[in-house]
Amino acid sequence: MGMTMTQKILAAHAGLPEVKAGQLIEAGLDLVLGNDITSPVAINEMKKMKDQTVFDKEKIALVMDHFIPNKDIKSAENCKCCRDFANVHGITNYFDVGDMGIEHALLPEKGLVTAGDAVIGADSHTCTYGALGAFSTGVGSTDMAAGMVTGKAWFKVPPALKFVLTGKPSKWVSGKDVILHIIGMIGVDGALYKSMEFTGDGVKHLTMDDRLTICNMAIEAGGKNGIFPVDETTVQYIKEHGDRPYTVYEADEDAVYDAVYTIDLAALKPTVAFPHLPENTKEMGTFEEVKIDQVVIGSCTNGRIQDIRQAAEILKGRRVAKNVRCIVIPATQSIYLQAMREGLLEIFIEAGAVVSTPTCGPCLGGYMGVLAAGERCVSTTNRNFVGRMGHVESEVYLAGPAVAAASAVTGRISAPWELGL
Amino acid sequence: MGMTMTQKILAAHAGLPEVKAGQLIEAGLDLVLGNDITSPVAINEMKKMKDQTVFDKEKIALVMDHFIPNKDIKSAENCKCCRDFANVHGITNYFDVGDMGIEHALLPEKGLVTAGDAVIGADSHTCTYGALGAFSTGVGSTDMAAGMVTGKAWFKVPPALKFVLTGKPSKWVSGKDVILHIIGMIGVDGALYKSMEFTGDGVKHLTMDDRLTICNMAIEAGGKNGIFPVDETTVQYIKEHGDRPYTVYEADEDAVYDAVYTIDLAALKPTVAFPHLPENTKEMGTFEEVKIDQVVIGSCTNGRIQDIRQAAEILKGRRVAKNVRCIVIPATQSIYLQAMREGLLEIFIEAGAVVSTPTCGPCLGGYMGVLAAGERCVSTTNRNFVGRMGHVESEVYLAGPAVAAASAVTGRISAPWELGL
Repeated sequence: MGMTMTQKILAAHAGLPEVKAGQLIEAGLDLVLGNDITSPVAINEMKKMKDQTVFDKEKIALVMDHFIPNKDIKSAENCKCCRDFANVHGITNYFDVGDMGIEHALLPEKGLVTAGDAVIGADSHTCTYGALGAFSTGVGSTDMAAGMVTGKAWFKVPPALKFVLTGKPSKWVSGKDVILHIIGMIGVDGALYKSMEFTGDGVKHLTMDDRLTICNMAIEAGGKNGIFPVDETTVQYIKEHGDRPYTVYEADEDAVYDAVYTIDLAALKPTVAFPHLPENTKEMGTFEEVKIDQVVIGSCTNGRIQDIRQAAEILKGRRVAKNVRCIVIPATQSIYLQAMREGLLEIFIEAGAVVSTPTCGPCLGGYMGVLAAGERCVSTTNRNFVGRMGHVESEVYLAGPAVAAASAVTGRISAPWELGL
Repeated sequence: MGMTMTQKILAAHAGLPEVKAGQLIEAGLDLVLGNDITSPVAINEMKKMKDQTVFDKEKIALVMDHFIPNKDIKSAENCKCCRDFANVHGITNYFDVGDMGIEHALLPEKGLVTAGDAVIGADSHTCTYGALGAFSTGVGSTDMAAGMVTGKAWFKVPPALKFVLTGKPSKWVSGKDVILHIIGMIGVDGALYKSMEFTGDGVKHLTMDDRLTICNMAIEAGGKNGIFPVDETTVQYIKEHGDRPYTVYEADEDAVYDAVYTIDLAALKPTVAFPHLPENTKEMGTFEEVKIDQVVIGSCTNGRIQDIRQAAEILKGRRVAKNVRCIVIPATQSIYLQAMREGLLEIFIEAGAVVSTPTCGPCLGGYMGVLAAGERCVSTTNRNFVGRMGHVESEVYLAGPAVAAASAVTGRISAPWELGL
């Protein structure tokens, strides 16, 4: 019986010729990731273990990103815990204020993940790196602790769903619209503990930033991971960002899928997920006026240069509406610098938006844009659960950067074409 | 008996030919200021009053600056309270995300304060505007409420201290060093409820940004206000930033001062206030090595373009030391934009610093750089009380932007000349 992309990677990392869905395996890891919220828990867990040596000081990434520069004493203590740990163990990939970014934007950019890798991270959106043809998934802090010491993790091999993408998306449709469409179609538990494998002729029309966004939100359909095949776009990205050798794993022709969905990218429209679930999707043009108070453009989902460029294209020469706060958050220092050099940050400031230093901040109601009761936010982030960005009576509407930027200008949820674009 | 600058302004605003120290007067106000922390308290107080009409919708400034973009639900609710109030009352000078700045940098920049004004603000550093030859002082939220309705406030006319400034400060000595030197000399209660009137030949060598910094910290010596005479520098600044008519009040030759201090600016050195009081000052070169964890360059004290330029001059082509976080916070959107256009923000990012959207944030331990136990920060802010920037076991060292930037590079409190500058 054939294997999927994910199964092939897991088999190789478990040293087995073959694995099948449901099988329990122990796989070697290429990278173990934690952030400023989850790492301190893992570090404390590690202190209970007999062996407190890290398996490979170059294969652990500690990324301070949720609450830095520190938002309170607790977050300052958490970062200090990670910093001290990194110094004691000589962790080479420790990222703090000034040389950092949101973890899932940062690791691919730094070349720390490549095709064929098996990666765990103590953050649910670790599934992002499937865009590079890697297996990556979110785990708890205890698994992170074990991974830091042993370099291994137990997995139950996931079954898979196949998404055959065809056609070319239109101008204002990006990866975010693709994944929101899929989540709307299969629901927030539609891929529960399954691989979401993306394939088809349409893949070549998706940029690496599109693919990273799509895999990033696999978890929002309950997926164990999301994964794309490796093509020229992938190889070019990998070579531009690092020099680690990579391995391409292709799905067997007779690989087994629980279901196969075909999606015509050309037929998709900019899509918004209404409160309070990512599956509550509506296409632009199919709903009544929704006035808004805030717009957030950023996060591990949509804070990459393509997202920033698209938002700037819309905000250029326009003004953010009165009584609307527009917060732009480039996902990494490198993206921030690039956006500044391209003149994009200037466009945002002139439009009346603010540009924040990279942070997860508002996505999880952390800081840098928390909502009051009754307020509505259009956000390029990944979750719109009750109270996710603040008060339980606030509302989050998930969208791509094009809709978010257009909405900032009009003060209501809007498509770019409402501005004549 | 002659009057001081402050007494003349108060007499004019009370409609009296003369006032003297200790006299109780009621003065008309040119501006009533509140921020996102203090305004909601004032707004709630106002709701208890019979008359709930504002005296002049163009003479009230509500500046959201302490915790925006909002750091938590409470701060979001506070801003919403102010925003709703501003909309209901048609307050023209309401400043929020995207068109804002730290209040004491923003109001002079927007031309909302001019020479001869009497201004109250529900924030202790309202004394900043004395740099323009205005009387301005911090009040409680109840006084702010009364001021918003009546356009008046009660004052006990303050006695005064005279600071005769002579000579020209050397390259790395700025307004911050001048005021730290003075506070070190007279102590944190050295000017308790008194005017601090600055005069002398040395004034002409102080830029408007220097003077704003000096008056800003009058409160740190206990002063009721700080004030500079109006000269060419003042008039040029006023004309560049607005078109309101201004009035020049000069101290009488026989004005009475409780004390007169003469300070030779040419003899001053870059100065640092050690924990935990602004009066604990030491000149550079007079103390042992102090290792640091964080540097903050910003605030109502030192977030203006001159401060940002000075920090950039030092950080250009250099790197922030390992294990040091350097946070640069331009005080207003306009300063942020100007610094970006001058290439200064690029210098900071390349040096490994981060640039925050304008906020008071870390100065008061709010967010954007809160300290953990045992951490030390060199900060261009105004207070270094126990726990001011975070944990009670953290330490804040107050300095000007030159020392702050140099310290970021070396990782210990350093003067620019230690870098060969």
